[in-house]
Amino acid sequence: MNTSFNHHSKDEVNVSEIDDTEITGDVIKVSAKSRSTAVAGAIAGVIRDHRYAEVQAIGAGAVNQAVKALAIARGYLERDEIDIVFTPYFTEVVIDDQERTAVRFKVEIRA
Amino acid sequence: MNTSFNHHSKDEVNVSEIDDTEITGDVIKVSAKSRSTAVAGAIAGVIRDHRYAEVQAIGAGAVNQAVKALAIARGYLERDEIDIVFTPYFTEVVIDDQERTAVRFKVEIRA
Repeated sequence: MNTSFNHHSKDEVNVSEIDDTEITGDVIKVSAKSRSTAVAGAIAGVIRDHRYAEVQAIGAGAVNQAVKALAIARGYLERDEIDIVFTPYFTEVVIDDQERTAVRFKVEIRA
Repeated sequence: MNTSFNHHSKDEVNVSEIDDTEITGDVIKVSAKSRSTAVAGAIAGVIRDHRYAEVQAIGAGAVNQAVKALAIARGYLERDEIDIVFTPYFTEVVIDDQERTAVRFKVEIRA
């Protein structure tokens, strides 16, 4: 999987390295197997390009990896003097014909 | 355990109901066993009183409960037209003579 947003990211992320992580537009789908540093690089890349990102996680393991990635991404973006804040919300998603409750994090630049 | 901040909270929280949740000043310590709605009430109460709160979690189960509580607390505080945002960071804590990495969430009112 190749995405265009990484080509000028300072925190180079080889997306294929991010196990089970999917990136569609500005939505980064995190799994319990996702590496938090790789996801953090993806978040930083999307924020630099779009000034906005969403991170989606289903289940405690995925939520934990997402939160770690958000904390690490803050460090990456501080170097660029970008200060990000988050708002979590619940959303229903359908996976394999089953409805699941996902946690979504809106990632925004602090006003 | 009784804390003073709940006495005029709209989302009445009996803190003793919050299994394994500890509240010290504006720091709310969440465990994997914490009930997310009760923690959300505690966050809303601390925010109303102090305009600032910190939520601490150690381990994936606790982080997940903390994130769910943050999402629910947003709903409680929206009724008061208070819009909260979060920034997670890592901190080292010592528990039973062992160093553990905790996730802390700063909870602030959006500027």
